[in-house]
Amino acid sequence: MYDAIVIGGGPAGATAAIYLQRFKKNVLLIMKDSGALGKTAHIDNYYGFVETITGPELLEKGINQAKRLGVEVIKDEVLGIDNFPDFNVKTINGEYQSKTVLLATGKNQVNLRVKGFNDFIGKGISYCAICDGFIYRNKKIGLVGNKEFMLEELEVLKNFSEDITIFTNGMDLSVELHDEKIVTEKITEIKGDEKINQVVTENSEFDVDVLFIAIGSPSASDFALRMGAFLDKNNIVVDESFMTNIPGLFAAGDCIGGLLQIVKATSDGAHAAIAMNKYLKNN
Amino acid sequence: MYDAIVIGGGPAGATAAIYLQRFKKNVLLIMKDSGALGKTAHIDNYYGFVETITGPELLEKGINQAKRLGVEVIKDEVLGIDNFPDFNVKTINGEYQSKTVLLATGKNQVNLRVKGFNDFIGKGISYCAICDGFIYRNKKIGLVGNKEFMLEELEVLKNFSEDITIFTNGMDLSVELHDEKIVTEKITEIKGDEKINQVVTENSEFDVDVLFIAIGSPSASDFALRMGAFLDKNNIVVDESFMTNIPGLFAAGDCIGGLLQIVKATSDGAHAAIAMNKYLKNN
Repeated sequence: MYDAIVIGGGPAGATAAIYLQRFKKNVLLIMKDSGALGKTAHIDNYYGFVETITGPELLEKGINQAKRLGVEVIKDEVLGIDNFPDFNVKTINGEYQSKTVLLATGKNQVNLRVKGFNDFIGKGISYCAICDGFIYRNKKIGLVGNKEFMLEELEVLKNFSEDITIFTNGMDLSVELHDEKIVTEKITEIKGDEKINQVVTENSEFDVDVLFIAIGSPSASDFALRMGAFLDKNNIVVDESFMTNIPGLFAAGDCIGGLLQIVKATSDGAHAAIAMNKYLKNN
Repeated sequence: MYDAIVIGGGPAGATAAIYLQRFKKNVLLIMKDSGALGKTAHIDNYYGFVETITGPELLEKGINQAKRLGVEVIKDEVLGIDNFPDFNVKTINGEYQSKTVLLATGKNQVNLRVKGFNDFIGKGISYCAICDGFIYRNKKIGLVGNKEFMLEELEVLKNFSEDITIFTNGMDLSVELHDEKIVTEKITEIKGDEKINQVVTENSEFDVDVLFIAIGSPSASDFALRMGAFLDKNNIVVDESFMTNIPGLFAAGDCIGGLLQIVKATSDGAHAAIAMNKYLKNN
């Protein structure tokens, strides 16, 4: 049982892990890839670096710093988090228990960039099978994705309907499926009236009552949504101590909104770690 | 006329100056010495530095970074700031005009560490001659200090009383005075009843009605106080855009309170710079 699991290895997550480690907490940092910072070629405005530094360089420094100070770091992808009452964090390769969790996975919810998509968000386009699956029992369900995250959602949706079509949207399917309807063509348009009713691909059309999105990996807001945490325009809502409405679940960095800058993320991380340390003392 | 003058060369000030420079603003950073960070021997928890770094090293990096990006940096000591309506920043060596000012000089208000001192703060111990001098016209005034800041306060106090005694509190007097009563002994105690009435030194006692404190250099809260900005327990009060109640006067870092950490100061600095850029556009 960890005192804290930090999900995300960017500026917010690494800073929080470093602070928690200095508070002598038993902390695990789970990171997947490099997020937004990993795509940043030139950083000039992060205090303390005289010369330009690249995002990947800064990320590596932060992780090496955390490791040097004793933080346990693993590279793995988190698929889901449960809490009753302790947290159980499920990854592709294992499960980890903790008294608190910090979501710091940045702002990476992936959408489809096709005609009509934005028109039907909340009108039959959903990001959460656990939240909305029940509404569409025995209906025609579409599910977009190609990896473990899609598989997680699929398992949930199977409880509600047998008519499920998986759209990989041109991506390679990286998980094994049996007896599922799979469409590998690219999606070109979403159609509907009041609500979605059709997914158009390069050479075909598919009638659907709902389209669930599970592209790539789950984002912080995906986790938050599934656990019942409040969101505001895809930002996780936290109080002044960076805790969500779920006791012990904290969030920091880009995923809570505000300025999408390294300095803001590191500040969030430090504040969250201090609040988590206090929470661990009082609970 | 500068777009912005940043007072203070620590993490908050340097970050703000860097951001303002990137917004193509004409910015001047005035720094005196190294503040709290300059006294910090070991920094392990500032994101991005794998190995331990010292405060002076980080400060130097930050300033060199600002200079590389084109920020004009001067080493000087700010003595006072006026605004009608543009800001005039008076230093030991010059005067500078600007449309906006950012106070980022840290938390360095110097107090006397002698018996009785804390008992008489607000009861005859004052930090602001412009604010309180009039109350003590023709009274016995004591003034503690040994440098330019003390001289500034002295010039103000001379308008109100001829009975002024200067206490250097054992420090060398680094400015020239004429016909002033000067006590160079160390202060050992502050005495009084409801209000202060006596300053006790190593070998003597002096009756006073008020004791003004102008030790070392003026702090951000000293400037703020003199300009009529709101303070709360010596912290400068700012709104969500880091602006004080005085239009165009911003503050960031330790001087506005909160977490006294580098990550919080840099975050403050970036947020303040963005707000100042917006303010400059709208005014």
